Amino acid sequence: MKKSLGAKTLLYPTPVLVIGTYDAGGKPNVMTASWGGICCSQPPCIAVSLRKATHTYGNLCHKKAFTISIPSENFIRQADYFGLTSGREIDKFARTGLTPVRSDRVDAPYVKEFPVVIECKLVRQIELGLHTEFVGEVLDVKANEAVIGSSGMVDILKLKPLIFTPDTQEYYGIGNLVGQAFSIGLKL
Amino acid sequence: MKKSLGAKTLLYPTPVLVIGTYDAGGKPNVMTASWGGICCSQPPCIAVSLRKATHTYGNLCHKKAFTISIPSENFIRQADYFGLTSGREIDKFARTGLTPVRSDRVDAPYVKEFPVVIECKLVRQIELGLHTEFVGEVLDVKANEAVIGSSGMVDILKLKPLIFTPDTQEYYGIGNLVGQAFSIGLKL
Repeated sequence: MKKSLGAKTLLYPTPVLVIGTYDAGGKPNVMTASWGGICCSQPPCIAVSLRKATHTYGNLCHKKAFTISIPSENFIRQADYFGLTSGREIDKFARTGLTPVRSDRVDAPYVKEFPVVIECKLVRQIELGLHTEFVGEVLDVKANEAVIGSSGMVDILKLKPLIFTPDTQEYYGIGNLVGQAFSIGLKL
Repeated sequence: MKKSLGAKTLLYPTPVLVIGTYDAGGKPNVMTASWGGICCSQPPCIAVSLRKATHTYGNLCHKKAFTISIPSENFIRQADYFGLTSGREIDKFARTGLTPVRSDRVDAPYVKEFPVVIECKLVRQIELGLHTEFVGEVLDVKANEAVIGSSGMVDILKLKPLIFTPDTQEYYGIGNLVGQAFSIGLKL
């Protein structure tokens, strides 16, 4: 028997995405968002949803470009801080001591110290209600050598991304490998 | 120094979502998708992206309703199987022995044995390329008592959702609690 929890934004897992943009004056800003995900394979696209009230919303409308920097567990404080404050009032890079790097693909900054960054040009902007969904075409993904495994692909156990729980508002780490996709289901 | 991995659909984490729909004849089907996420808080909306080639795509266009059943780790084989086969050729519920339950909120079935289900009515359909993004308004979320914690909210450590890695195509489990959101960042 299932218990009704109501009409809520619940999903497991949700990501912790640090969105990088420049404002009209060229000042870099970052904010943390968990409403988002991959939305198309060809062209490769990722969607992130933002409230109009955010500084990033205005920056994104203006610059039509953003990055997603993925923090590892050891940057949990900085990632959380990026979601607690507004770039209108504070220079979040200066406050955290992290370093903005200008993307070589889009007009947006990313966080140098974070191990994976995704560089996106804005291709769609969809008004849904409190949030606007921004669809970015991925022009490049860059990763620190330290999180790349022997296969040449990102090793999620080295990356150690954060996972956000929408209801309890907590961050969790990544667990163990439990199976190979498109394979383990063959042995039902 | 970061290494370029190219223009790829990479994001960490991505979810494992089992999408439930009825076909025109009322036959229940499920497929597994990892391209999706929460996209709006008010109204509460979740987006999932599907290829036109899938049976679910046609069902969703027809019925304008879907559910998302979230498998726990112990259903990894069934969840993977749901992404390996097409409902056009096979009755996936019969093959796996899992039970379709008609949602009391939308014209779509969910997987009885999976611990969390999200019931959505289709509100937007956005053509992005190979994938079409379907935005569903969440009408209810239901969870087994066994995954609800003392707070009355879902305990992700009891739920044990799967996490999919797009490049290495593996499933991972959830890790440990690493911090409280909107709090740990105050202590920079």
